[in-house]
Amino acid sequence: MTDTSPTRFQSFSTPTRPENGPPRLKALRAQLSDERLSGFLVPRADAHQGEYVAPRDERLSWLTGFTGSAGFAAVLPHVAGVFIDGRYRVQVKAQVALDVFTPVHWPEVKLETWLIEHLPKGGVIGYDPWLHSSSEVERLETALSPAQISLRPVANQVDAIWPDQPARPTGMVEAYPIEFAGQTSSEKRASIAAKLDKSGQKAAVLTLPDSICWLLNIRGNDLSNLPVVQGFALLDAQGQVTLFSEPDKFEALGPDPAITLRHWDEFEDGLRALSGPVRVDRTTAPHQIRLILEEAGIEVAFGSDPCIFPKARKTQAEIKASAQAHLRDGAAVARFLHWFDEMAPKGGLTEIDCVRALEGFRAETGVLRDISFDTISGAGANGAIVHYRVSEDSNATLKQGELFLIDSGAQYQDGTTDITRTLPIGTVGEEEKTAFTQVLRGMIGIHMARFPRGISGRDLDVLARAPLWAAGRDFDHGTGHGVGVYLSVHEGPQRISRASEVPLEVGMILSNEPGYYREGAFGIRIENLIVVQEAPALPDGDDRAMLSFDTLTFAPIDRRLIQRDMLSAAERDWLNAYHLQVAKKIGPQLEGAARDWLIKATAPI
Amino acid sequence: MTDTSPTRFQSFSTPTRPENGPPRLKALRAQLSDERLSGFLVPRADAHQGEYVAPRDERLSWLTGFTGSAGFAAVLPHVAGVFIDGRYRVQVKAQVALDVFTPVHWPEVKLETWLIEHLPKGGVIGYDPWLHSSSEVERLETALSPAQISLRPVANQVDAIWPDQPARPTGMVEAYPIEFAGQTSSEKRASIAAKLDKSGQKAAVLTLPDSICWLLNIRGNDLSNLPVVQGFALLDAQGQVTLFSEPDKFEALGPDPAITLRHWDEFEDGLRALSGPVRVDRTTAPHQIRLILEEAGIEVAFGSDPCIFPKARKTQAEIKASAQAHLRDGAAVARFLHWFDEMAPKGGLTEIDCVRALEGFRAETGVLRDISFDTISGAGANGAIVHYRVSEDSNATLKQGELFLIDSGAQYQDGTTDITRTLPIGTVGEEEKTAFTQVLRGMIGIHMARFPRGISGRDLDVLARAPLWAAGRDFDHGTGHGVGVYLSVHEGPQRISRASEVPLEVGMILSNEPGYYREGAFGIRIENLIVVQEAPALPDGDDRAMLSFDTLTFAPIDRRLIQRDMLSAAERDWLNAYHLQVAKKIGPQLEGAARDWLIKATAPI
Repeated sequence: MTDTSPTRFQSFSTPTRPENGPPRLKALRAQLSDERLSGFLVPRADAHQGEYVAPRDERLSWLTGFTGSAGFAAVLPHVAGVFIDGRYRVQVKAQVALDVFTPVHWPEVKLETWLIEHLPKGGVIGYDPWLHSSSEVERLETALSPAQISLRPVANQVDAIWPDQPARPTGMVEAYPIEFAGQTSSEKRASIAAKLDKSGQKAAVLTLPDSICWLLNIRGNDLSNLPVVQGFALLDAQGQVTLFSEPDKFEALGPDPAITLRHWDEFEDGLRALSGPVRVDRTTAPHQIRLILEEAGIEVAFGSDPCIFPKARKTQAEIKASAQAHLRDGAAVARFLHWFDEMAPKGGLTEIDCVRALEGFRAETGVLRDISFDTISGAGANGAIVHYRVSEDSNATLKQGELFLIDSGAQYQDGTTDITRTLPIGTVGEEEKTAFTQVLRGMIGIHMARFPRGISGRDLDVLARAPLWAAGRDFDHGTGHGVGVYLSVHEGPQRISRASEVPLEVGMILSNEPGYYREGAFGIRIENLIVVQEAPALPDGDDRAMLSFDTLTFAPIDRRLIQRDMLSAAERDWLNAYHLQVAKKIGPQLEGAARDWLIKATAPI
Repeated sequence: MTDTSPTRFQSFSTPTRPENGPPRLKALRAQLSDERLSGFLVPRADAHQGEYVAPRDERLSWLTGFTGSAGFAAVLPHVAGVFIDGRYRVQVKAQVALDVFTPVHWPEVKLETWLIEHLPKGGVIGYDPWLHSSSEVERLETALSPAQISLRPVANQVDAIWPDQPARPTGMVEAYPIEFAGQTSSEKRASIAAKLDKSGQKAAVLTLPDSICWLLNIRGNDLSNLPVVQGFALLDAQGQVTLFSEPDKFEALGPDPAITLRHWDEFEDGLRALSGPVRVDRTTAPHQIRLILEEAGIEVAFGSDPCIFPKARKTQAEIKASAQAHLRDGAAVARFLHWFDEMAPKGGLTEIDCVRALEGFRAETGVLRDISFDTISGAGANGAIVHYRVSEDSNATLKQGELFLIDSGAQYQDGTTDITRTLPIGTVGEEEKTAFTQVLRGMIGIHMARFPRGISGRDLDVLARAPLWAAGRDFDHGTGHGVGVYLSVHEGPQRISRASEVPLEVGMILSNEPGYYREGAFGIRIENLIVVQEAPALPDGDDRAMLSFDTLTFAPIDRRLIQRDMLSAAERDWLNAYHLQVAKKIGPQLEGAARDWLIKATAPI
């Protein structure tokens, strides 16, 4: 049992002060007028194009009050648009001063369309070239040019009026153990340097913190949820790295002759001192890097971040470490599920109680470093909001007969987890069970898949949907995303999605999370992490190398929600074999009532 | 019963006279020398990029002796390469004089790589710009230019040395009945003309015979297997058509003020008289058309043939007509299957006997216009050759215990069919039955699919393969191709294939034909045609418009080859419901022993 004391990692307040917006907007407009700009773009982005940003990079919420994890503002002299997607339509209205900010439905309304509508010919929009990738800038320039509106790279105009802007984060860096990484940094650097050399590229610019951490076998403490150090790196074709960040953060690491630590301020000089061609990822690197290189007459070779593919193909050691983290996490989740079964019938439990309890069970492992994202904890209709984040304001009390969806993850030093379970509160209706079983069948379809090399996530996505499609249903998100090892819970390039044509390769970790959502009623999602492996040979198979998925996540899937007769024999066999493994792998970590509960929860159906 | 008299449509001889090759090659080289060319390309293609060509366009076989349906030659002063893919590696050696022709394994060896290897810098390769599309020429020019080898459009050098080259085909044209087409030609022309007008295009050049026949509601008799008239058409943005061909062929049609018939010879003048922009399909139109337009200073707007999509989306009348043709064809196939079951046990039956019998049963309908392709009739190991075409030389006698694969189709005025069945000769082993059942499960997976709008053949392809993949198996061809209505049995753009990202739309007809092939042992393929329809609404479905497949082909699937316990309940239900429909829909066309046979062949499993 755990108490439901305050959580260390997740907060439930949304500190919005809409009244701060108007004076800050006024100050920004005065600043733009001084700079003779017709407008300025304020993305929710940092120079590393990450999902999680440091407080100093929360310019969008500082200016507008809007705290969502995606969106941007375009500030013009007479109108200031706050562009938000479907999931934030309600939230934005509560958070921004609507007399000065105009919510814009994006991506239905494109930024370029909106700018052309609100600006005269000759308009000049300022943007901070550290916060936008080259491909983003190029696309926007092409779209605006027929309307004779131009973009101008300028110093950040929000920073200029933000007196108490926080400093850059200064979290300490630690070495990532070789027993988890499975490959030394010098091996990684040598391998990538050889590829650069072969392509005739003298160096690559690395701007993604998880690429840098993976390459150097380090982890950082600069952000919540994502254990990275922020910085930029230059990797040359001899495998030498220069890392631009805050050298004090690296105190705990010993010196390495192949790695030179320099200060953030020296990055531009570092770029100018390069010989070309220099590899730059146009989709992730700040446009400013290209501008600096081109101004210095250094040839730019566009190409993807060279760490992305090798990072995605986990080593055997990484897979072993992640599997170990998943068993620990599975036991914590099982304790939570047992607790839930005890508490839910008593009534009065809230969504926040559940988040606190789950974080508590994970903290009890003694090795929880962080949660990998804010837990999605949605009861009844809240479960149908795919990106629901419970706050003090929205916090619902769980009602008998409803479904409860909880999607959460942890960061341990040996692995990153991400798991969703959907649970009944008391007895739920046949309709909910039928939908749950359809979702489960899709999830099992991916788990059981065996496929030739060359197959991408796009090709497999239908397996997760066919049972829902057969019932005239679908879900409006991808089936799975890539996951790192004590790195990002959303990692590319691997995905199970119609948008992903990247062939799946051995060692890639993915989520498998089909769902079904009935607006205003309930949400269902079941999620395990899986890892691509060489498929075991079959006696009557062809002489074809094939791949399959191994399972990382082990925690009970609620048997009370399954319509047994809807499952095929093969699907039942998979479920029973999975539950047998759950009992075997996490049972030894549980005791007493929790262990008894697990035995029942994993009994064959 | 039918006798196995000579077939009208399919021949089994391969008239190869390798000894003709050397003198013709010598004459061609003399011709090239006169023209100061370093070489000449001889594709198996006509100006309409069709799968079936007229005798006058069989330049490749006339020159080299090679009669395969795909391939090309590149003739240089000291070497003449005959480029053939995997299926023709054996055939080419039997058909060409190997002392003067060199078979080249294509596409493993690319034409450009081979040319660069065999030609010095400054080499000039001649090609007939009527026989190559613009995209083909552009791609090759780009690949050759670093090696300073250039391409030169010239008059056809083979025609110049082919004294008895056949004339253009002169098959008579007939009107295609409106009750089958469902839309008048003037409606079709108005609709496409409006799109041209909206795009600011003054006219479109049509070079694909099936596009022209569809647009004008006509059919022709210029080729085997494909009931089209060869010609070129210009459609202007007011819906007027000028058709360049042989006006005498159109005698049977009444005059239409919107259609002007002109002679082949006037086509170039017709092009030169156009106002631009003129729409040209760079992937299918002869490069010569672009050269003529550009030389005349007429703007070319590249865009796909505007008939392709509307032709692919069949009208209700076309679907009804095709369904009717399929019931007639299904009854002929059922008669054949009954005959086969009577004859096979007696022994001595050959692959050619089966082709003759099947064509005979189709001919007995009294309305068979043609076969839609040469029947693939393969017993035992021959069944594993995906594009096997039986000849007098290869003709195998069916052996007890083997599988027999027969893939065939018919052209009736109301529709084009394509059906494959795999049959046991006597009693076959468990291994064959297991593989057959895996293939059948994949086929049923496609038949039962229900999917949202926007889904392409690529997204569904896995459904046909998952049961084979699960057994470590796969097949190396697409799952399905588009099919026309009394037009081409291979029609684009719709396909069920990992190579097809075209969304499926209501009215598209496709084949559904998974297979499994064990080299040297047996081949299995089961094929029905299906048509995309609006999926019937479901009581508990979401408010999403979804699509599904309706079935066109009705003929028994051999129950003796099915391992019943490998099928899920849903798959068994599908099969039993299908066979019930087969009995109901084609039973009334059969009598006596054939009808009794059908009842047994379609009994539930």
